[in-house]
Amino acid sequence: MIRLRRSQAVAGLTTGRITAFSDGVFSIAITLLVLNLRVPTVLPSESPGNVLDQLRTQWPNLLSYILSFVIIGIYWIAHHNMFHYIKRSNRAFLWINILLLMCVAFIPFPAGLLGQFSFIEQPLLARVAEIIYASNLILTNLMLSLLWWYATSDHRLVDQDIDPHFVRTVNRRNMTAPVVYLVSIGLSFLSPLASLIVFFLFPLYYIIPSHIDLHLTPTSRTKEEPKEHEDSTGEDSSITGGEGEEDIS
Amino acid sequence: MIRLRRSQAVAGLTTGRITAFSDGVFSIAITLLVLNLRVPTVLPSESPGNVLDQLRTQWPNLLSYILSFVIIGIYWIAHHNMFHYIKRSNRAFLWINILLLMCVAFIPFPAGLLGQFSFIEQPLLARVAEIIYASNLILTNLMLSLLWWYATSDHRLVDQDIDPHFVRTVNRRNMTAPVVYLVSIGLSFLSPLASLIVFFLFPLYYIIPSHIDLHLTPTSRTKEEPKEHEDSTGEDSSITGGEGEEDIS
Amino acid sequence: MIRLRRSQAVAGLTTGRITAFSDGVFSIAITLLVLNLRVPTVLPSESPGNVLDQLRTQWPNLLSYILSFVIIGIYWIAHHNMFHYIKRSNRAFLWINILLLMCVAFIPFPAGLLGQFSFIEQPLLARVAEIIYASNLILTNLMLSLLWWYATSDHRLVDQDIDPHFVRTVNRRNMTAPVVYLVSIGLSFLSPLASLIVFFLFPLYYIIPSHIDLHLTPTSRTKEEPKEHEDSTGEDSSITGGEGEEDIS
Amino acid sequence: MIRLRRSQAVAGLTTGRITAFSDGVFSIAITLLVLNLRVPTVLPSESPGNVLDQLRTQWPNLLSYILSFVIIGIYWIAHHNMFHYIKRSNRAFLWINILLLMCVAFIPFPAGLLGQFSFIEQPLLARVAEIIYASNLILTNLMLSLLWWYATSDHRLVDQDIDPHFVRTVNRRNMTAPVVYLVSIGLSFLSPLASLIVFFLFPLYYIIPSHIDLHLTPTSRTKEEPKEHEDSTGEDSSITGGEGEEDIS
Repeated sequence: MIRLRRSQAVAGLTTGRITAFSDGVFSIAITLLVLNLRVPTVLPSESPGNVLDQLRTQWPNLLSYILSFVIIGIYWIAHHNMFHYIKRSNRAFLWINILLLMCVAFIPFPAGLLGQFSFIEQPLLARVAEIIYASNLILTNLMLSLLWWYATSDHRLVDQDIDPHFVRTVNRRNMTAPVVYLVSIGLSFLSPLASLIVFFLFPLYYIIPSHIDLHLTPTSRTKEEPKEHEDSTGEDSSITGGEGEEDIS
Repeated sequence: MIRLRRSQAVAGLTTGRITAFSDGVFSIAITLLVLNLRVPTVLPSESPGNVLDQLRTQWPNLLSYILSFVIIGIYWIAHHNMFHYIKRSNRAFLWINILLLMCVAFIPFPAGLLGQFSFIEQPLLARVAEIIYASNLILTNLMLSLLWWYATSDHRLVDQDIDPHFVRTVNRRNMTAPVVYLVSIGLSFLSPLASLIVFFLFPLYYIIPSHIDLHLTPTSRTKEEPKEHEDSTGEDSSITGGEGEEDIS
Repeated sequence: MIRLRRSQAVAGLTTGRITAFSDGVFSIAITLLVLNLRVPTVLPSESPGNVLDQLRTQWPNLLSYILSFVIIGIYWIAHHNMFHYIKRSNRAFLWINILLLMCVAFIPFPAGLLGQFSFIEQPLLARVAEIIYASNLILTNLMLSLLWWYATSDHRLVDQDIDPHFVRTVNRRNMTAPVVYLVSIGLSFLSPLASLIVFFLFPLYYIIPSHIDLHLTPTSRTKEEPKEHEDSTGEDSSITGGEGEEDIS
Repeated sequence: MIRLRRSQAVAGLTTGRITAFSDGVFSIAITLLVLNLRVPTVLPSESPGNVLDQLRTQWPNLLSYILSFVIIGIYWIAHHNMFHYIKRSNRAFLWINILLLMCVAFIPFPAGLLGQFSFIEQPLLARVAEIIYASNLILTNLMLSLLWWYATSDHRLVDQDIDPHFVRTVNRRNMTAPVVYLVSIGLSFLSPLASLIVFFLFPLYYIIPSHIDLHLTPTSRTKEEPKEHEDSTGEDSSITGGEGEEDIS
């Protein structure tokens, strides 16, 4: 009896509540990014030209906004896809997730640094901003990998019938981003601009559907999803778990 | 088998979860607008008159707050109405939605510019702010149009029995706002004030119910919604889909 | 047919979704209040005494934080109590609610003014801040009253069996706050401090349970809520609607 | 009749809605912490070295971010665990919860003070920041204790069959944090650094699973949670309430 009791230490925290809290943090962090753009104050003494110059200095912040918005979007999708398979929770898992959120909620700060430092003619500052930005993302990815590894090893928090090949593939693929961002850190010592280009190109890997994806989606959808006429909110409980290689991270 | 798997790449992201995340972004963006209003700092050395002058410079920010709050409100309603018909999701749709959110979450910045620049005696700055503001809204509308077009063409993510006339009407109507905002950009070169007036009048088109709307709503409601005595949360699953011309965007 | 269609113009916006969006705005506005407190920047050249002086100037902001947090809390409770009875939605109702949220989301700004202006030795500034603060609250209350009046008149959006005495009582009580805040505006011309004291005392009217309340709650609870052993999330659908006089606003 | 009516004064506020609003405040407060980190503005005239110096002054803010993120995370977990047992709500309970949220939403401010003051060579400022930080946490803990005490005494808002030993244990354990933070305030007079170390070590008490926990969790989980193949959202209604000593606060 005592044993059962203690094991339910986080009984109140179902995965439903964890994702609700996590979604809150994701959506706030992604929306706070806009605060890095600064509205120039117009003083009566200032000439319009000066104000426009100040406004022009905001375009790197705009680029950083777009980049960071897409990256947080990618993490949100990865997080949700993982929670599609994760059925239970425990204290350690809960804290891995909180550490992951700590990394995600931090992104607006390096995003601000990147906007301020990386598009100007000072290689030293550009490099520093890029290293901090990349380090934050590497850490976020490692927490995401840890979350998946912890939940799936020994089927700790997932169903017994999860495809072991799929679990291993995700584990392996989770290491792609840390490696790419490590390379971009190295690259920043040669050319901050090259590193920046890697930042902007890499997310496309997660966004653009693969060749196979494009052709198969319509066909298979018809099969797996018979017409539903109920006014469902889209919670389609008939989907038993996608096992495509791209679906996590 | 492989085919089915890959097509479920975003299986974990039901439309219910997408709207929850989107609602988060909409409600945060709309609430961040207030941060554009600046509380004057009272230094002991400053005269009360000076402080009040500083406070008076906030009224354009107040007007911009009201305008932008209403506009984000309109987008939120349009987004929700669309998701009333959208039953499924896929990777491309997910990213169109994230790009739409990127445009919506950006609104606090041009709203700040409009408040700072558009009500002062400097036509150049007023025009720049109006062009940026209108461009952001044009982009937001184009993403909203793309979202609807993508979801409905070939009944990709909607039910088969959706009224094709309704789908086409929404597609056509979605282009109203981009055209109006393009006109307001042109107008800003003649008179920034005229452009500003268009900004404030156009939202009324979405708010004020049409003549027909006013007369029909009470009659038809009685028919379609029999008294319900259950303590429902308002999720009225008996509504099978409004097809009025005004219901989207 | 056409009639039915048009009447469902906001079919996608169930009251459930409206409260979710509203809750988002309420919780963000209430949490943004803390941004009115400013952390003094410590420059190496500054003496610790100077920094502590700067910190001491934050206590009015602290008082404003507490006051405004409680007031937004009161509005949130009133809003939720109203939506307990409101079962349907339409376009006009939706926009009244968005205008209400516009008033609530604005509170952090007058809260900042009150913190900066109202506790210093400058009656003019104190009065201005109090008038703006009270006006914002009057407007918020009027929107809340309008929301209830619109939803209940002719049983437009509520059930037919709602107690008409209860509806009238709420309508009448909704006018208490606007009157009190109008009086506090008048009072601010005599003594800004007196007006401030009204601000801090009035919320107690909503918080402190009435004499009758205190005695009856335990007794009646036992009767109406039989023990439930299911792990419910607290959505107690057996409650058919409180009709106490205090329950709204 | 009249009695029943009045007792339902907060009928509209189920515990489900209270937790949703609370989760909103928790997730926003935790995400606002990042705003305490300041991106240095790069002026053309400034040397890169100067900018990097400014950036270096942010590491105490980073430490404060990590600490405060973990602490808000702990409160969120405690809050949710409590609401696992709390089945009903009333007016007084509602206001205790709003006061608790007021304390939680305030944390970003003392977190900012701690980051600015506590890692510099000015013991006076460090001590002041630590006292404010610790006082905020003591107050938060007292509200959390009050919430639990109020809900459980006389089984006011919990089920009749809750383990009385468990209730008492939580009541007693809830006093640990206030005592520790009181000690850290005393310690700050001897050595601000020592006090800071207590701040960083104490949360580990809530994070690190106890020896028994580690060994029992896998065993007992298998027993209590038979494999589920439904696509549940994780709301595991079969858990009837953990009674482990660690589960609250």
